Amino acid sequence: MSTEKRTDVNTLGEFGLIRHLTKQFEIQNDSTVRGIGDDAAVFDHKGWVSVVSTDSLVEGIHFDLMYMPLKHLGYKSVVVNVSDIYAMNAIPQQIVVSIAISNRFSVEALDEFYAGVKAACEKYKVDLVGGDTTSSNKGLFINITAIGKAKPDRITYRSGARPGDILCVSGDLGAAYLGLQLLEREKQLFIDNPNMKPDLEDQKHLVGKQLRPEARGDIIAYMAQHDIIPTAMIDVSDGLSSEIMHLCKESNVGILLEEGKVPLHPDTEKMALNFNIDPISCALSGGEDYELLFTIDSGDLEKIQTMPDIYIIGDVTDPEAGAVLKTTGGNFHRLTAQGWTHFGEDKTS
Amino acid sequence: MSTEKRTDVNTLGEFGLIRHLTKQFEIQNDSTVRGIGDDAAVFDHKGWVSVVSTDSLVEGIHFDLMYMPLKHLGYKSVVVNVSDIYAMNAIPQQIVVSIAISNRFSVEALDEFYAGVKAACEKYKVDLVGGDTTSSNKGLFINITAIGKAKPDRITYRSGARPGDILCVSGDLGAAYLGLQLLEREKQLFIDNPNMKPDLEDQKHLVGKQLRPEARGDIIAYMAQHDIIPTAMIDVSDGLSSEIMHLCKESNVGILLEEGKVPLHPDTEKMALNFNIDPISCALSGGEDYELLFTIDSGDLEKIQTMPDIYIIGDVTDPEAGAVLKTTGGNFHRLTAQGWTHFGEDKTS
Repeated sequence: MSTEKRTDVNTLGEFGLIRHLTKQFEIQNDSTVRGIGDDAAVFDHKGWVSVVSTDSLVEGIHFDLMYMPLKHLGYKSVVVNVSDIYAMNAIPQQIVVSIAISNRFSVEALDEFYAGVKAACEKYKVDLVGGDTTSSNKGLFINITAIGKAKPDRITYRSGARPGDILCVSGDLGAAYLGLQLLEREKQLFIDNPNMKPDLEDQKHLVGKQLRPEARGDIIAYMAQHDIIPTAMIDVSDGLSSEIMHLCKESNVGILLEEGKVPLHPDTEKMALNFNIDPISCALSGGEDYELLFTIDSGDLEKIQTMPDIYIIGDVTDPEAGAVLKTTGGNFHRLTAQGWTHFGEDKTS
Repeated sequence: MSTEKRTDVNTLGEFGLIRHLTKQFEIQNDSTVRGIGDDAAVFDHKGWVSVVSTDSLVEGIHFDLMYMPLKHLGYKSVVVNVSDIYAMNAIPQQIVVSIAISNRFSVEALDEFYAGVKAACEKYKVDLVGGDTTSSNKGLFINITAIGKAKPDRITYRSGARPGDILCVSGDLGAAYLGLQLLEREKQLFIDNPNMKPDLEDQKHLVGKQLRPEARGDIIAYMAQHDIIPTAMIDVSDGLSSEIMHLCKESNVGILLEEGKVPLHPDTEKMALNFNIDPISCALSGGEDYELLFTIDSGDLEKIQTMPDIYIIGDVTDPEAGAVLKTTGGNFHRLTAQGWTHFGEDKTS
């Protein structure tokens, strides 16, 4: 039997629980006029516009508590939302956090989750300003809404890319997907033999990108400092291929992606082969990278070339050309939401 | 076998499903610069402040699909959030809707839900500007975040009540609670005998307040027109007693509530006795009324007396006096979150 303290959530009452979970959060932004404790939070954005985004994480669909520590889950829940705000070229300011929990979660378990939320709030300088804590019959459900601010002339939509623009991405891609495959494999080994201890020490990059991703606020800050405004931007949550297709659709352009230029971490290349997967497929279809994919005017090329951790991976073309992958071997494939097909095929390969 | 059309949600794909569900929503507010379709929505509130509130509704906890039609559920999900915005003396402008659904829901079922969301958006003139549609292993989970705007000097917190102020409430209380009891009773009868048809025609007020509540934007508009700013305000979602205690705590005041002045619909009085419950208990502890509870300066008394559908139900007192119910019989009871206790008792009666 575990000797860890386990306080039933019902002992605190609904309002007591909210106070308990949120009392350590401090307001960090001037625009937060009023946070938790009333019917709604209040913001003031003089001369700025607000942006808002929401994302849900559902137990058994988006995460598995067998390998996802609750603190990491809290952190990641904030990161995925903050990432959407950055993808608008905006600065995250406030979040509201709603959770539905079954009674198998103790107050201590929720404390762990909120410790992760708090760590992310501090890292990204966002204020927790409200939320809803309720029961569920089964499973943990998390919904976070993030609010950001932006100077109106800096807001970047998915729709502004033009033929001749340059396609860029931050960081490296495909690692989070392989991190998940690794964790799933270890989980199966553990189920088969509970005495086995998982050894993932060598795979910190892959596992870290899956369990504790970061949002690229550094890229947004750098671009503001160096007077770069992307023509279009999106964050990579569903895989590079899917995001490229969003940009093509919303901007009414084509995109030529060059396989050889897609940034892959050495651990990603190695582990993909270990799993018998083409490494580029991890980047195209994996998802959960939370890197920024954006297009810039070709006049900004010089500024971008000196920017740290940014990779130029393709070109924006006419809409008729479509979304196309040029392989290192010089072949051309049509991109699909799931990856790519050979030209002329109807189905995803 | 049912002949109703049933389209599996997976046939549309995630983005196809979102487009399908939201294509009929039109932008109604100037402050909505950009709605659905990017990483985040964008708002402009020149000279106004933003307010934001969030609420979750979980199947099996907050609603039962056996008697809650999906269209009503969509409507009510918006109403409970819009009600929080009104309770700030603000005007609702935008909502984001997140749902997690198991595969037992068809596209047609979701269409019903979104038809209700749309009806509420039109009624309350709010723009649907984003959301997240995801899978769940079991059950329906809904989270809505509402954003409103207010002139900074009109925002009303829970914390502004002062001794000498007058306590008011809109509409009538306790009906939604009895509507729920009625629906639960009919459900049990139906489970025992599936051939039985429920007859709730005579109980439109009670059942209507439960299944299709309205938020009191009319009260907010009237107060703006007649230059009334409440000193404190909250919406009645958890029961009058719980809300009065929130006002006392946040404003550091006491409140004397007069039982005889609490507005009860004749159907509420009748049905409470039918269920063998004291009618005032339905108002104090029932909840889900979504009426507005507020305090005004005594100088505004005359203006309030001529206001339609507003009831003066008590007085704000010194904090030492606490939250107290004066019964029609002239007795005094201490209010608790669950209702009231006799003075000197430690536990809820």
